[in-house]
Amino acid sequence: MFEAEIDAGILKECVEAVVAVIDEGKVRVSDDSLNLRAVDPSNVAMVTLQLQRDAFDSYQFSSDEGTELELGIDFPKLGGILGIGGKEQVLLSVDEYARKLNVQMGSLAYTVNLLDPSSLRKEPKVPELEFPVQVVIETEEFRRTIRAAEKIGEHILLGVEGDEFYMEVEGEMDKLRLGLRKEQLIHLTPGTLHSLFTLDYISAMSKGMSHAEHITLNLGMNYPLQIDFEIADGKGKVSYLLAPRVE
Amino acid sequence: MFEAEIDAGILKECVEAVVAVIDEGKVRVSDDSLNLRAVDPSNVAMVTLQLQRDAFDSYQFSSDEGTELELGIDFPKLGGILGIGGKEQVLLSVDEYARKLNVQMGSLAYTVNLLDPSSLRKEPKVPELEFPVQVVIETEEFRRTIRAAEKIGEHILLGVEGDEFYMEVEGEMDKLRLGLRKEQLIHLTPGTLHSLFTLDYISAMSKGMSHAEHITLNLGMNYPLQIDFEIADGKGKVSYLLAPRVE
Amino acid sequence: MFEAEIDAGILKECVEAVVAVIDEGKVRVSDDSLNLRAVDPSNVAMVTLQLQRDAFDSYQFSSDEGTELELGIDFPKLGGILGIGGKEQVLLSVDEYARKLNVQMGSLAYTVNLLDPSSLRKEPKVPELEFPVQVVIETEEFRRTIRAAEKIGEHILLGVEGDEFYMEVEGEMDKLRLGLRKEQLIHLTPGTLHSLFTLDYISAMSKGMSHAEHITLNLGMNYPLQIDFEIADGKGKVSYLLAPRVE
Repeated sequence: MFEAEIDAGILKECVEAVVAVIDEGKVRVSDDSLNLRAVDPSNVAMVTLQLQRDAFDSYQFSSDEGTELELGIDFPKLGGILGIGGKEQVLLSVDEYARKLNVQMGSLAYTVNLLDPSSLRKEPKVPELEFPVQVVIETEEFRRTIRAAEKIGEHILLGVEGDEFYMEVEGEMDKLRLGLRKEQLIHLTPGTLHSLFTLDYISAMSKGMSHAEHITLNLGMNYPLQIDFEIADGKGKVSYLLAPRVE
Repeated sequence: MFEAEIDAGILKECVEAVVAVIDEGKVRVSDDSLNLRAVDPSNVAMVTLQLQRDAFDSYQFSSDEGTELELGIDFPKLGGILGIGGKEQVLLSVDEYARKLNVQMGSLAYTVNLLDPSSLRKEPKVPELEFPVQVVIETEEFRRTIRAAEKIGEHILLGVEGDEFYMEVEGEMDKLRLGLRKEQLIHLTPGTLHSLFTLDYISAMSKGMSHAEHITLNLGMNYPLQIDFEIADGKGKVSYLLAPRVE
Repeated sequence: MFEAEIDAGILKECVEAVVAVIDEGKVRVSDDSLNLRAVDPSNVAMVTLQLQRDAFDSYQFSSDEGTELELGIDFPKLGGILGIGGKEQVLLSVDEYARKLNVQMGSLAYTVNLLDPSSLRKEPKVPELEFPVQVVIETEEFRRTIRAAEKIGEHILLGVEGDEFYMEVEGEMDKLRLGLRKEQLIHLTPGTLHSLFTLDYISAMSKGMSHAEHITLNLGMNYPLQIDFEIADGKGKVSYLLAPRVE
């Protein structure tokens, strides 16, 4: 049994973070949190989301077998419905036997069939990665650069050179470069490394992080990128993992 | 002869209410009001509009034969032109011999040929209907539910069950339901009945009522729906009539 | 060598004024100003822009040969990048040997290849024209009329009849006319004349003048139209010239 109340804005934030990478996914509900881990259809990007029990205003969970509950969810559909509601509380409840999710927003009740978890892509293993460099940057500065980069080219180079973090994109005729020195960032591990990524994935991710004030970029040399940020006023967290392109 | 001055906002409100159902229609001008009654091309929806003489700032009408004046109007075109003007007064005048309508907005003069009334669909007879139930609801609550319903399905069920009014739409995988008890409404006649309607028509109508604070829904069992609301600060009124779908 | 600092808003204003007529053009940089003069691909419209040295916060220019520097610029591309930046200062610098323009906006550096000036259309000669009538009008009144006219027809008549300036557009079924008497304008030379123009060109021009408070229309009888306005708080000016249509 799962029944929980949460602020509509926080739930929207979670859905936005997830749809940046996937449409359909499996949420695991346990006694202390909701968890999701999924890869996109092309196996290039991964999203991990954890939302703690205390992000909810009420939270009731029980399971006969002491196990988790798995909910297969169509996130864009859920996001569309939340977008219509106002700023009210949302009451979530699961009808396990009918395999339905009920979303109550004020006088509006929305019921959707849960997807069969066995029909969804398997949860990926989290690869063991070590990132020599961390960069903590204001989300808006990152997002603004991504929006500008979209006008120029298709790939983006993220790197650190000494005390400077940079983002660089090249078009046929032009080039855009953001360079931020350590003092212009919230945190920087100095180093010399860079990796190239497909801009489309990072553009989508940049939409999923819009509510976070700052993000942490974990970087290596021709290595995956991991972007971490908080949601739900620190009572939840999201990680995006993106494979690098071979230069 | 017809010449009248009116607030641009009120005239826009009237045009919006009409274009929710029809594009071309016939306005009857008489000594005390403007009147329109028309059915949509598919004969499923009807709009009736009355705008009283005192909704105007000035109003001059005379007719040799003591009859009404019939003006065939292309409403989307008129609405487009009013949309450009500011918040000024609008001076309407009819050149009966040239069959033209003049719309003066400040320094901007717009002249449009009137449509030949005999080329327009005939005015429908108003069917004799008795509605056992009235529901008075805040327009914004109704419109918000319609916007949400558009994401789910193509038909909407409106009904009353005891002291509750409900709106319900079903998709292939999901279902949305608004349920409002008597105390959440401005007025409700208790009862047990419902009718199904094509959502597209109600969506269009919900755009035509956006300036009214509340609307009255007149309902029966597998029966037409009549929606009434005021325009022009109570100096005019609109009724929409919509045929039910056979379930 | 050319290196100059300017407010981002002023530079955007210049780019908007130019793209109303052309995409690619040649800017001549001299010791005291930037200058551009170009015709559109159909040879129907011309734009002249002058931006004085004192519109810049810093301005460094030197040339071995005492000549001007010619910069071939893709204006929509430059405008797109400026649109992303905030309200900061912009530092422009030219790498003459690599034929590149550098645009520095805060931490964001944009570099674009200059176009080969010899590949661009030749600068037109300014025809010798004498305009018997000048009309000075508030830009917003002019632009609003143009937006309304776009809904009606494809050509617009601009004229003066005695003490009145008018703009007139005819559709198949309707007609729109703005008439402003001398006292409703900032300035009017009385007269009797008119010329017809293709609305598309004037629509585009009306987007380029949106930052100017008023514009001067220079008119003749079946004669070109010249529209003059200031940019950069009076430290620059733009002229559009448009050939008339034969009625």
